[in-house]
Amino acid sequence: MKPVIKPRTYKGTRDFLPDQMVKRQFVIERIKTIFEKYGFEPLETPAIELMDTLGGKYGDEGDKLLYHFVDRGERHVGLRYDLTVPMARVIAMNPQLPKPFKRYQIQPVWRADKPQKGRFREFYQCDIDTVGSESMLADAEIIAVFADIMNSLNFKDFTIRINNRKLLRSLIINVGLPIEREFDVIRSIDKLDKIGLQGVESDLIAQDIDVQTVSNIIRILDFQGDLEKTFQHAEAHLSGNPEGDSGLNEMKDLLHYMEKFGVKESDFKFDLFLARGLDYYTGPIFETVVKEPKIGSVTGGGRYDNLIGMFSKQSWPAVGSSVGLERIITAMEECNMFPPDLDTPVKVLVTIFDKNSTDQSIEIVNLLRKAGINSSLYLGSSKLRGQLGYANDKKIPYVIIAGPDEIAQGVITVKNLAAQTQESVSIDQLSSYLHEK
Amino acid sequence: MKPVIKPRTYKGTRDFLPDQMVKRQFVIERIKTIFEKYGFEPLETPAIELMDTLGGKYGDEGDKLLYHFVDRGERHVGLRYDLTVPMARVIAMNPQLPKPFKRYQIQPVWRADKPQKGRFREFYQCDIDTVGSESMLADAEIIAVFADIMNSLNFKDFTIRINNRKLLRSLIINVGLPIEREFDVIRSIDKLDKIGLQGVESDLIAQDIDVQTVSNIIRILDFQGDLEKTFQHAEAHLSGNPEGDSGLNEMKDLLHYMEKFGVKESDFKFDLFLARGLDYYTGPIFETVVKEPKIGSVTGGGRYDNLIGMFSKQSWPAVGSSVGLERIITAMEECNMFPPDLDTPVKVLVTIFDKNSTDQSIEIVNLLRKAGINSSLYLGSSKLRGQLGYANDKKIPYVIIAGPDEIAQGVITVKNLAAQTQESVSIDQLSSYLHEK
Repeated sequence: MKPVIKPRTYKGTRDFLPDQMVKRQFVIERIKTIFEKYGFEPLETPAIELMDTLGGKYGDEGDKLLYHFVDRGERHVGLRYDLTVPMARVIAMNPQLPKPFKRYQIQPVWRADKPQKGRFREFYQCDIDTVGSESMLADAEIIAVFADIMNSLNFKDFTIRINNRKLLRSLIINVGLPIEREFDVIRSIDKLDKIGLQGVESDLIAQDIDVQTVSNIIRILDFQGDLEKTFQHAEAHLSGNPEGDSGLNEMKDLLHYMEKFGVKESDFKFDLFLARGLDYYTGPIFETVVKEPKIGSVTGGGRYDNLIGMFSKQSWPAVGSSVGLERIITAMEECNMFPPDLDTPVKVLVTIFDKNSTDQSIEIVNLLRKAGINSSLYLGSSKLRGQLGYANDKKIPYVIIAGPDEIAQGVITVKNLAAQTQESVSIDQLSSYLHEK
Repeated sequence: MKPVIKPRTYKGTRDFLPDQMVKRQFVIERIKTIFEKYGFEPLETPAIELMDTLGGKYGDEGDKLLYHFVDRGERHVGLRYDLTVPMARVIAMNPQLPKPFKRYQIQPVWRADKPQKGRFREFYQCDIDTVGSESMLADAEIIAVFADIMNSLNFKDFTIRINNRKLLRSLIINVGLPIEREFDVIRSIDKLDKIGLQGVESDLIAQDIDVQTVSNIIRILDFQGDLEKTFQHAEAHLSGNPEGDSGLNEMKDLLHYMEKFGVKESDFKFDLFLARGLDYYTGPIFETVVKEPKIGSVTGGGRYDNLIGMFSKQSWPAVGSSVGLERIITAMEECNMFPPDLDTPVKVLVTIFDKNSTDQSIEIVNLLRKAGINSSLYLGSSKLRGQLGYANDKKIPYVIIAGPDEIAQGVITVKNLAAQTQESVSIDQLSSYLHEK
């Protein structure tokens, strides 16, 4: 007997079997339809990029997580780490692309991370970005896209948190800190969800910021009130310098356009405490938090007006966001948020009563396929009972049985396995009968 | 000024810009719809596999073309080289999957090859396989799928060539060669398209097969005639041993089922000269050749009853085929076989007449999006003329202009850029007007 290799997947990677694929495709198709409805166009870039392109773009920590290797021609290459750097490369290589350029991209990325529950080495990212628009219309549109996605996927209790990096810079100025402390403060604020308000306070104090200043920071950021009151509070404490004034103007435009785009006030929150970890944001920032099911943030993004220039002399203003596809799918699975019958694309199994009735079963399956009904013909060697078990195991909703007596009368039996019902249907009316179901 | 990296892609890989993506998605969507109509279910496997899984599966030549590297934990891993070995691994790891198991898989694969025109290091493969059925129904169904795909994509002059490995083994036996010479002969026959009939003859003679035997081989294989005559010819020369008799029975069933599945005789040819290069085929083999446009074979596959067992003690009969997605897309592009207007998913650009009319333009774009019409709102800073140029560059078919005078009357202007026409449409009727178009 030949030696058998124990089959395994590489840790942190996954197979998606048909029942999972159908659910993944459902979510991706919904998201894609909404992206295109808002005028975003598809883009794909290769998995393998030159290390010239990838290296040094993700900070020291990110660089460590790059999968990279040398090819047979001694070229140093790596696997795509995100979808933003490849897009910046595409923009630089294709100056002919009309601006504003609005693209979506749904592809896997790779990170040489320690796999943990919910953290993978290979996972899909799903991004939209608008490149070449300074208008807050672009930012508002992306927020509208996410409100549309969350509602369309039936998330009931989500909030799109919105803030502006310029207001955080204004905060640094107005509490009297040097502007170089911006990212230190942002990193502390960003920990709120993990360490709480007192944690952020201690964190700021640990950074050598005096107690009075820390207290001022917290007092300004930790404001609870409706949209109008929050805006007034921001105007009162974050104006009076060019950063703050510009940030307030942006927020005014953004909120106005969001309203016009139909984003409901109950779906978002102007939240001064929102910081977003990354250094490169320059204007509005936003993320979507889901409270029920409790999965944290599922989208995150903002405006980054200086990043797209990394591969060319010409820089472009840009705003974009990622959708946490994997997290959304996991949450929807755990909370049974998928529509029923999303186990297989196959709607009907046509059984083969006995060898003599094979041709008749083929004619029936032809009929269904012509009518656009996804149908499987039983191809195995089991008897009828086994064929029903097969349909049951595969969760195929309808089974067709066509015995010689029935065929002689021009009828067949349609079984609904889940409902445990069956009906006699004339062959002429079979397609329309199943289409109705 | 900061140093600028010259942006490049890794040789043999490609970006797919929106106008290419729309065409790729069109073809993939068509194929996927047909796969699912015939009851095939989606599967995805990871890009990164353990080298235990990949190594030694593709012969010496294939092994050289594997991208492989050692990860931070000293694990030897590689990039997916095809979709068959990962499927065999999935089958072995998931004994719960009901058989027959019919799956399709559309994902990129990687090969460390020298890039040439039309040959890439990263390209999509598109496979269907039926695992766990010995019936010729399974083989016939896959051939029916490909006839359906080729017709649906509007290929006018294609032929599905069909043969059976058992008949080629019978040929070896009947001309008096030892059965070990099977693959030598198959490799010579397989070169027919490249080196012609005389080339195959010389090639066989060069393999130390005597002239009379070579002449017998050619006489048996090189038969021209209709389906019935070819079958009679095969019966006359390739029967009389268990391999041949079994092959002829398979062909009889296969051809019968193909007819029942509605595969037209004009769409296929029983071609004794078809060999297919790979060693692992055990029964029917088939490939689709397109004569116009001249692109060679676009699908290829067959029955391989001993391969799926490589990862487990249990072996499964299987039949499957690949679609040459990249080749099909290239041919359709070169021959203008795509429907018109397949340049962008965006159907309408809503212009912004001036800053004061922004809110009204948002209302119009909201209306269209609610009606499910993919619409872009102009987000840039150009005047109207520049906005029309933008729509033109992006090949967006319809442009909407809503100036203050028009809005006051409740109408807007719809321009069809390609036809260079324009009409005044009332805002109430806009969605239905565009849906009609």
